[in-house]
Amino acid sequence: MKMLETKTELIVRYAETDKMGIAHHSNYAVWFEFARTEFFKKLGFSYLSIEEKGILLPLTDLKCSYKKPAGYEDEIIIKVRIIKMTCVRIAFSYEIYDHFSDLIAIGETAHAWTDQNLKPLNIEKKISDLYQLLKEAI
Amino acid sequence: MKMLETKTELIVRYAETDKMGIAHHSNYAVWFEFARTEFFKKLGFSYLSIEEKGILLPLTDLKCSYKKPAGYEDEIIIKVRIIKMTCVRIAFSYEIYDHFSDLIAIGETAHAWTDQNLKPLNIEKKISDLYQLLKEAI
Amino acid sequence: MKMLETKTELIVRYAETDKMGIAHHSNYAVWFEFARTEFFKKLGFSYLSIEEKGILLPLTDLKCSYKKPAGYEDEIIIKVRIIKMTCVRIAFSYEIYDHFSDLIAIGETAHAWTDQNLKPLNIEKKISDLYQLLKEAI
Amino acid sequence: MKMLETKTELIVRYAETDKMGIAHHSNYAVWFEFARTEFFKKLGFSYLSIEEKGILLPLTDLKCSYKKPAGYEDEIIIKVRIIKMTCVRIAFSYEIYDHFSDLIAIGETAHAWTDQNLKPLNIEKKISDLYQLLKEAI
Repeated sequence: MKMLETKTELIVRYAETDKMGIAHHSNYAVWFEFARTEFFKKLGFSYLSIEEKGILLPLTDLKCSYKKPAGYEDEIIIKVRIIKMTCVRIAFSYEIYDHFSDLIAIGETAHAWTDQNLKPLNIEKKISDLYQLLKEAI
Repeated sequence: MKMLETKTELIVRYAETDKMGIAHHSNYAVWFEFARTEFFKKLGFSYLSIEEKGILLPLTDLKCSYKKPAGYEDEIIIKVRIIKMTCVRIAFSYEIYDHFSDLIAIGETAHAWTDQNLKPLNIEKKISDLYQLLKEAI
Repeated sequence: MKMLETKTELIVRYAETDKMGIAHHSNYAVWFEFARTEFFKKLGFSYLSIEEKGILLPLTDLKCSYKKPAGYEDEIIIKVRIIKMTCVRIAFSYEIYDHFSDLIAIGETAHAWTDQNLKPLNIEKKISDLYQLLKEAI
Repeated sequence: MKMLETKTELIVRYAETDKMGIAHHSNYAVWFEFARTEFFKKLGFSYLSIEEKGILLPLTDLKCSYKKPAGYEDEIIIKVRIIKMTCVRIAFSYEIYDHFSDLIAIGETAHAWTDQNLKPLNIEKKISDLYQLLKEAI
């Protein structure tokens, strides 16, 4: 398998705007996560199914650079791919584009694999086929 | 004990505004809930401690009438009290005021007591002292 | 034109869940609004284009009854239609279904047409062709 | 005037939690902003009053490192101070602590001063006394 990059589309919601008239910056983390959900689904392991095995993937770090505002009803595309991983950690990068292909934002999230008490765990040992798929998807 | 009515203050957040320039209507349900948290705390049973016993209180119904908009940095007060209860259900009413004592909104929420699988349960049987306190607080 | 009812699909986001493990009740108002956006688009007048004419449609009332919880990654469908209207007010009803066609929630929102200072206005006088389309869509 | 650092307290809301049982990571940006609001208020220029002069302060960059989860009903403290500024840009740093003084998260936000069309502007020229106060507050 070669590098996996997924493209997730969504329409900016009214509730996501703020009094500046644009999408509030906190929503980008929500959109990144929405795109990660699709990434895992494309990989063949829904993130829900991973959590159902008692495995969580909380964030340790978030970065976002805002290049151009997104507005209500804008159709945006979020590209996501893995940029780094070990058997205990994984990091993704994101690019958000509007429908003119203008860059809206870029970002990164870093995560640790943990159990339900948020104790770190080794994903290679816990779900080795997921680990293999992720490694091939870089 | 006589009827309990709590007053919870909060300041409208920038992220809660929308492109209309006012607090988005979906936040009122969040504010009602924030006020319920304080109501339970005043009663002597934090809502967190109830959940830690494996008991949940999901909504079955929500109603809100918006009377006057709330804006960024507005200091608002949420009054909450119980309006109805049985051993399986409870309903609260809310009034939101701004710092001029103008009415911002009124609302109601109805809830069912459930276990962690969202199956209804009898709170009088599960935590009888909580049930007594709630009954006295009407 | 006959009665217009639109169906909007969305996938429940992780950020929309709460510690109960289900979609937080405040999101339903956001989903209703997302469905209204599509309703107006289908009608031929995007809600954005209406706001660009300086006309707003704030809520005066919200009602929601929660029938069955919605969970992370659930694909849900929101049906929306007009239930009442005059030249100054409009009300919509909503039904949310999961992909088993089970009813998740029903709701209603009532709105007033206003200018940018939130002063009521007569939509028949302001945008008569929008008013005609809405009347035919009931 | 010497370096200004403000401390803002808040209680984690139920709606801010996610199915992992902890506060969703997107809320930290909202809390940073809430703390900025108090920072400007302490400085003597409410952020609302700045916007009323037609001046906005949108984010260009956000960074957050999550050290320890925050839970429902947790009382947290957000410290904020300026770390860098020019006449067109400003950056803040944040530390979030729980009530045991454990570090929850650290973060940074970078902003540009703009007009209402999001065009950059020189804050020293627009509101020179605000610029002076900010410079003294570093």
